[in-house]
Amino acid sequence: MRILLINPNTSSGVTARLHAAAANVAAPGTEIVPVTASKGVPYISTRAEEIVGGHAVLEILSEESTQADGAIIAAFGDPGLGGARELFDIPVVGLAEAGMATATMLGRNFSIVTFATSLGSWYQECVDWHKFSSRCVSIRALDKPFKSIDDVSEEKEDLLAELANTAVSEDGADVVVLAGAPLALLASRIRDRVPVPLVDCAEAAIKQMELLVTLKFRKAAAGNFRRPVAKSSLGLSASLSARLAHQDVS
Amino acid sequence: MRILLINPNTSSGVTARLHAAAANVAAPGTEIVPVTASKGVPYISTRAEEIVGGHAVLEILSEESTQADGAIIAAFGDPGLGGARELFDIPVVGLAEAGMATATMLGRNFSIVTFATSLGSWYQECVDWHKFSSRCVSIRALDKPFKSIDDVSEEKEDLLAELANTAVSEDGADVVVLAGAPLALLASRIRDRVPVPLVDCAEAAIKQMELLVTLKFRKAAAGNFRRPVAKSSLGLSASLSARLAHQDVS
Amino acid sequence: MRILLINPNTSSGVTARLHAAAANVAAPGTEIVPVTASKGVPYISTRAEEIVGGHAVLEILSEESTQADGAIIAAFGDPGLGGARELFDIPVVGLAEAGMATATMLGRNFSIVTFATSLGSWYQECVDWHKFSSRCVSIRALDKPFKSIDDVSEEKEDLLAELANTAVSEDGADVVVLAGAPLALLASRIRDRVPVPLVDCAEAAIKQMELLVTLKFRKAAAGNFRRPVAKSSLGLSASLSARLAHQDVS
Amino acid sequence: MRILLINPNTSSGVTARLHAAAANVAAPGTEIVPVTASKGVPYISTRAEEIVGGHAVLEILSEESTQADGAIIAAFGDPGLGGARELFDIPVVGLAEAGMATATMLGRNFSIVTFATSLGSWYQECVDWHKFSSRCVSIRALDKPFKSIDDVSEEKEDLLAELANTAVSEDGADVVVLAGAPLALLASRIRDRVPVPLVDCAEAAIKQMELLVTLKFRKAAAGNFRRPVAKSSLGLSASLSARLAHQDVS
Amino acid sequence: MRILLINPNTSSGVTARLHAAAANVAAPGTEIVPVTASKGVPYISTRAEEIVGGHAVLEILSEESTQADGAIIAAFGDPGLGGARELFDIPVVGLAEAGMATATMLGRNFSIVTFATSLGSWYQECVDWHKFSSRCVSIRALDKPFKSIDDVSEEKEDLLAELANTAVSEDGADVVVLAGAPLALLASRIRDRVPVPLVDCAEAAIKQMELLVTLKFRKAAAGNFRRPVAKSSLGLSASLSARLAHQDVS
Amino acid sequence: MRILLINPNTSSGVTARLHAAAANVAAPGTEIVPVTASKGVPYISTRAEEIVGGHAVLEILSEESTQADGAIIAAFGDPGLGGARELFDIPVVGLAEAGMATATMLGRNFSIVTFATSLGSWYQECVDWHKFSSRCVSIRALDKPFKSIDDVSEEKEDLLAELANTAVSEDGADVVVLAGAPLALLASRIRDRVPVPLVDCAEAAIKQMELLVTLKFRKAAAGNFRRPVAKSSLGLSASLSARLAHQDVS
Repeated sequence: MRILLINPNTSSGVTARLHAAAANVAAPGTEIVPVTASKGVPYISTRAEEIVGGHAVLEILSEESTQADGAIIAAFGDPGLGGARELFDIPVVGLAEAGMATATMLGRNFSIVTFATSLGSWYQECVDWHKFSSRCVSIRALDKPFKSIDDVSEEKEDLLAELANTAVSEDGADVVVLAGAPLALLASRIRDRVPVPLVDCAEAAIKQMELLVTLKFRKAAAGNFRRPVAKSSLGLSASLSARLAHQDVS
Repeated sequence: MRILLINPNTSSGVTARLHAAAANVAAPGTEIVPVTASKGVPYISTRAEEIVGGHAVLEILSEESTQADGAIIAAFGDPGLGGARELFDIPVVGLAEAGMATATMLGRNFSIVTFATSLGSWYQECVDWHKFSSRCVSIRALDKPFKSIDDVSEEKEDLLAELANTAVSEDGADVVVLAGAPLALLASRIRDRVPVPLVDCAEAAIKQMELLVTLKFRKAAAGNFRRPVAKSSLGLSASLSARLAHQDVS
Repeated sequence: MRILLINPNTSSGVTARLHAAAANVAAPGTEIVPVTASKGVPYISTRAEEIVGGHAVLEILSEESTQADGAIIAAFGDPGLGGARELFDIPVVGLAEAGMATATMLGRNFSIVTFATSLGSWYQECVDWHKFSSRCVSIRALDKPFKSIDDVSEEKEDLLAELANTAVSEDGADVVVLAGAPLALLASRIRDRVPVPLVDCAEAAIKQMELLVTLKFRKAAAGNFRRPVAKSSLGLSASLSARLAHQDVS
Repeated sequence: MRILLINPNTSSGVTARLHAAAANVAAPGTEIVPVTASKGVPYISTRAEEIVGGHAVLEILSEESTQADGAIIAAFGDPGLGGARELFDIPVVGLAEAGMATATMLGRNFSIVTFATSLGSWYQECVDWHKFSSRCVSIRALDKPFKSIDDVSEEKEDLLAELANTAVSEDGADVVVLAGAPLALLASRIRDRVPVPLVDCAEAAIKQMELLVTLKFRKAAAGNFRRPVAKSSLGLSASLSARLAHQDVS
Repeated sequence: MRILLINPNTSSGVTARLHAAAANVAAPGTEIVPVTASKGVPYISTRAEEIVGGHAVLEILSEESTQADGAIIAAFGDPGLGGARELFDIPVVGLAEAGMATATMLGRNFSIVTFATSLGSWYQECVDWHKFSSRCVSIRALDKPFKSIDDVSEEKEDLLAELANTAVSEDGADVVVLAGAPLALLASRIRDRVPVPLVDCAEAAIKQMELLVTLKFRKAAAGNFRRPVAKSSLGLSASLSARLAHQDVS
Repeated sequence: MRILLINPNTSSGVTARLHAAAANVAAPGTEIVPVTASKGVPYISTRAEEIVGGHAVLEILSEESTQADGAIIAAFGDPGLGGARELFDIPVVGLAEAGMATATMLGRNFSIVTFATSLGSWYQECVDWHKFSSRCVSIRALDKPFKSIDDVSEEKEDLLAELANTAVSEDGADVVVLAGAPLALLASRIRDRVPVPLVDCAEAAIKQMELLVTLKFRKAAAGNFRRPVAKSSLGLSASLSARLAHQDVS
């Protein structure tokens, strides 16, 4: 199967990291196609940036979705997920969604651990949107600046392990979800330093996507994620405009 | 005071309608500046379209916010509201938000009545985001096609009045919020045919915005809606890019 | 328009303060009519006192409501609000309700800051009744005695500003609602010392009431706040008894 | 033990009915002292009437509480309960509270069945205040007028049995709480006509009060129901004023 | 009346303690029949142990229920309660359930105080199952080992009193529920050292059971706790198998 | 990898069906080891039967867990899941849990469709335990008897497809979870007759278990599912007793 790994951030270093984490655990027949957004910011951490990133995701999918079996929106926060799930025919999963859904099968609750406080307020909205608030006991974030978004997980490795331990001892977390695309590949490195399961969202996302493709679920023709009726539009990319107007190929 | 009335839909007929409803009840010193989105769809009704509309709102505000005292995002569903509230210094209110906040002072609960079923699923997310779910007893929508988005409220006037009555008798609604920018101006016409208060969201929005401007609330420098830290970006409009980078004038 | 500003407390100094705060921001044509309860306690802070204050509010309104366009119940806690909204034909708003509804348009959440711990447990019930619990991240109160209810906001000004800052830094408050009629006029004095919007409930209440009157909402004839059927009564004031029996003038 | 059975309604016929139901199941050593409110309405069914009834309850308790071991507020809706629990030293229980707490030990959920639709909206607030909303699957009420409040349970016996059955079959009720003081004595008459347990609130209240007295719980000196600090007051009954001022005997 | 007091733990010392606490407050005509599980663990503190204990409860009841008027499942956590309530004709109440239902009539909220941290996570599930989560402000447990399960309440008396005080001062508890069968008899000893009502669950359970028997509620023939349809089974005790198959005497 | 497929029901025909469904979608290297409970009932549908089934699951796992990489509890309702997750070192997933977690990635909400009304009340508890109540819009069940538990999905195929359609049209379900082990293999047969994704829980469970094993999550040493401390026991199977006492091999 052919899976789009869409990084809604513009940082190709982060895309490479996500790709590596996903490839580590992918099944033999899975082809991962990484795509980096050409519009937006290096890493999304606010509601305004999410809109920009979500817009980029819709444009990418309107170009690529017909050549793929499934797509991962590879930023924790899942920009554009609801819209993508409506608009396209292939299964789409978000990095946060896959990580949290996996965590529900490992514990009664989870904590989210990330590398910058600015992310917390946006992440909370993501948790709420996914209706996982009653599962999420805390969102904990480091509060000091980092040097580079590409290597923040190596730079802060010890502090992140410590923060995960704090989530366990202070918040009673059964599971820790390591959040943010730049933290892909971290879980396996610190696994032995934290007493509960750690979720690497890139790993979770590729495996959940393989599951969704394997089980051959049909595209909804009713409910929240049925395809919207055709609409004309102004000022959008040609492919997105065609998709909205039901004038695309598929 | 000078208030931007931003229609995230591309239909200028709806903008004119919103303007008329707001002008009917505005205070003497209030100048209303209508703006219609130049990108997007004639009327937003899905999550994908909301992203497009939210993106347009951010672009408009990055051009116009420094010349205004406040801004209304004039589509029920409030596309881009969270991002706008973070990114800009003036108060911003959504059409849905203003209507629902007003309804809380008139009854224990409210129903939302609108003109097309396709809107319901997106509206529900808006209600949830605003944490008004425990107040909203139903979202009721007409299920037949309409001729023109500009005149749907006249075309469907009787059916909408009937539907409002159903919300009262079946769902126990204390208040009915008439939802969707195209329903501006309807409430006063059907006021005597429904036994509970009817909220015209365009009226509510302009009055709530006047209130917010009059009470001179400061821009948050902490919490969810503090301004994000400066970020570089790729592929965005010059003004939005400058605003994200803290390189705009204000 | 003519607005009753009903202080359910017996302290006329607090009434004067409320009047001043409301008058500061009222529109040109608004006449504010202050009324102080002649029965009850100097300041309500418990459930038992609320009943006494709510009873006084109903008596006052049964005397005055037909000569007014709207009424404010000017104690945080809103004693008698539900009953008043049922029983009388004019719009009625509570001090807490107006402050909290306004706060919802400024942040995702708010904290309530007040001057005496004894108020907290009653205020929590008020927040719950208004279904704003999911918005209210904390109720914080000073824990030392004060000299006079009339001047507590001046006496404790620095401590209250500090407490508001604690609500921001510890509880993540996006907005701080300054609670209790005796704190009217405080917000503007400490505005520059707190990094988030501060709500002065007396200001919010007069503006929300102007909005409700301007938008000409009809009295509910169905739902929770329809007028109760006529009932005879024993031992009540003549005017309240007449109102319950549908034998009053209006 | 000596238990006050306070009817906050002015109808002495209802008091007699409550007394009979309680006496049927009281333990040998229990003395029941019925008291009928001298101020208020024949039967409370709205928020405004609740304030009047709650005020009467506080006055009665300030006269009688020191000569009793416990008190029942014998109107479904429990007017004045929170205030009474703060202000007085003996245990106080409400008719609704006792019925619903008992129902939690008989089923996962319950329905409330009553004789007049006007009661429903006030009862819902009572359920919410007691935090039993997640247990209460419906409030069902007859919608036709009745002849006399004293005999409504006999007049409507068949209809009420039918309505209880509807609550079981339509709403999945595990238990039916027969609500409203005038429905005391009904449960035993229709017991064989409804397939789930029926709660007679007067029976439940006297037994729960015996339990509370027998178990000798101390009066709270902390938390929500500690006694309020002393306060002066204006215009209240001598005994209530003395109780608020800590100048009463006990 | 004849009440089974079933200890699902295998420790007969704890059974004796429960019996003593219940006997202290039982009514004259109440005969208490203590039964100790012959299968299981000395004291249940986890989900796995709960299943074992619940299984033992069902076996005991299938032997004994027809000779009794009611049954108490005397372990906080209430193992087997739902199943027992379905399967048998007499009223059944759990130790936790009786304690918490009683606490609702004493305060707005309660804390649970117990003697070992290992109990907390199982107790939380019990609170959730009973839908009392919105009432329970904390579960606090001692974190040091104890010598003997029979005497832990004497050994830890001072620490438990201290912990109850912490629940009041830190968590705002209105009531403290002393949890775990081994803490029967403790409440009366430390009553004067804690400023809020203390619930002894064994006392609460026997009085609530007397109430349920006295009020003669019928066995549900509909809803969640109607008797299951007859089923054959393999490998169970003869009496339990007969009960499941509707081949028992009653 | 070697996965235990534990059927807590005693019907081996259902085990064969579950095995077939899982084998259809399992990865090449996955060995599925079916086990049928030797104690209990042919199909679990009530709380009492769940305890019996959960007990059987713990006994089976105490025999088999060290020879496996993971285990599926293959009854919708997930008897014994919490206890198994505590007590054993391998990942354990429930049929209901896997189906519902998968559904969260396909829609905003889901309905559960099953073949007998007696299952509904137990299933609701399962949904609540998993904290998926806000996702589950309905549980719908056929209400007529069936001939054989082994073939109920063939016998009722058309009615079940119809019921799934009702869940979509009446309840707004985005996804339908076909519930109950006997409904394995049904989804693929009726896929084209229902307009939303259908979840076959046996398929979902084997794929989720493969995911959990592949991602090598560690056994929790803290939180809700850490292994309980060693305990002696009476009257249990040798292997379960050894596991509780920490005297088993692993």
